[in-house]
Amino acid sequence: SRELFVLTYGALVAQLCKDYEKDEDVNICLDRMGYGIGIRLIDDFLARSAVKKCRSYSETADMIAQVAFKMYLGVTASVSCTSAAGNEFSLILDKNPLVDFVEELPAERASLCYCNLLCGVIRGALEMVHLAAEVTFLQDRLKGDAVTEIGITFLRKAEDRKHKRN
Amino acid sequence: SRELFVLTYGALVAQLCKDYEKDEDVNICLDRMGYGIGIRLIDDFLARSAVKKCRSYSETADMIAQVAFKMYLGVTASVSCTSAAGNEFSLILDKNPLVDFVEELPAERASLCYCNLLCGVIRGALEMVHLAAEVTFLQDRLKGDAVTEIGITFLRKAEDRKHKRN
Repeated sequence: SRELFVLTYGALVAQLCKDYEKDEDVNICLDRMGYGIGIRLIDDFLARSAVKKCRSYSETADMIAQVAFKMYLGVTASVSCTSAAGNEFSLILDKNPLVDFVEELPAERASLCYCNLLCGVIRGALEMVHLAAEVTFLQDRLKGDAVTEIGITFLRKAEDRKHKRN
Repeated sequence: SRELFVLTYGALVAQLCKDYEKDEDVNICLDRMGYGIGIRLIDDFLARSAVKKCRSYSETADMIAQVAFKMYLGVTASVSCTSAAGNEFSLILDKNPLVDFVEELPAERASLCYCNLLCGVIRGALEMVHLAAEVTFLQDRLKGDAVTEIGITFLRKAEDRKHKRN
């Protein structure tokens, strides 16, 4: 059952809003916490999903949207590639269970990325499979957007960068 | 999947440990947060479990240990009544999934009730079905005890107290 998780997550965000005056600081903190979770969660994901190694950014994005989201949030996201270079993807969630109990953001918290933990989780998990990525919310229903959209930009692999430096 | 929840809960506890120097303050905060969660979670529980009204404290304790724990934590607890008056119960968890990723409490956090949120959740949920209760950890594996034990003491019903006052 997800409800206890969703409500506990709400308590975490509320506590951070008490701790930090600026939305930006809450967002950073959620992302950082998520990163710490992602680097641990990846083992659980690989063990339980028993998936094969992804051979492309596209496969990786699909894996996150279809398998990982289903496993941890109970929903899937639709994926589209948003760059000609093939390294930017958009994950669109019609339903975001993390906000089930949130009606709207308070006026004084208009810049809060309520679910920013998820970005950090994805970033941390990807890093553990040697994929550097930037992960951010591009649209958010809580901010009046029609859908919730997470953008993933895969960065050049660390190894590539190293070779180039050498 | 529980892992994301368990790790997120860990992030919450870690944040509170940053915020409050004293373990006792962290424990109080977790209990209070849990209470806020419990008073909202009870609707979800009643809707999804479709259980009948409990007719005794004993039935209520069983419901928490067998149905609610299973639903939200994926484990069940064994229950024993620990008072002649029949209002005190002990819920024993052989396995506590909330501490799956916790090896031990740091030495400077020896009085932390890591899972104290659960006590608040139970207390809040019970209050919404008009049962006043005190809920505390009596034993905790994280503190070296052999099992994790939650004590529930049902207090005289609010209505009884009211009648008495009148």
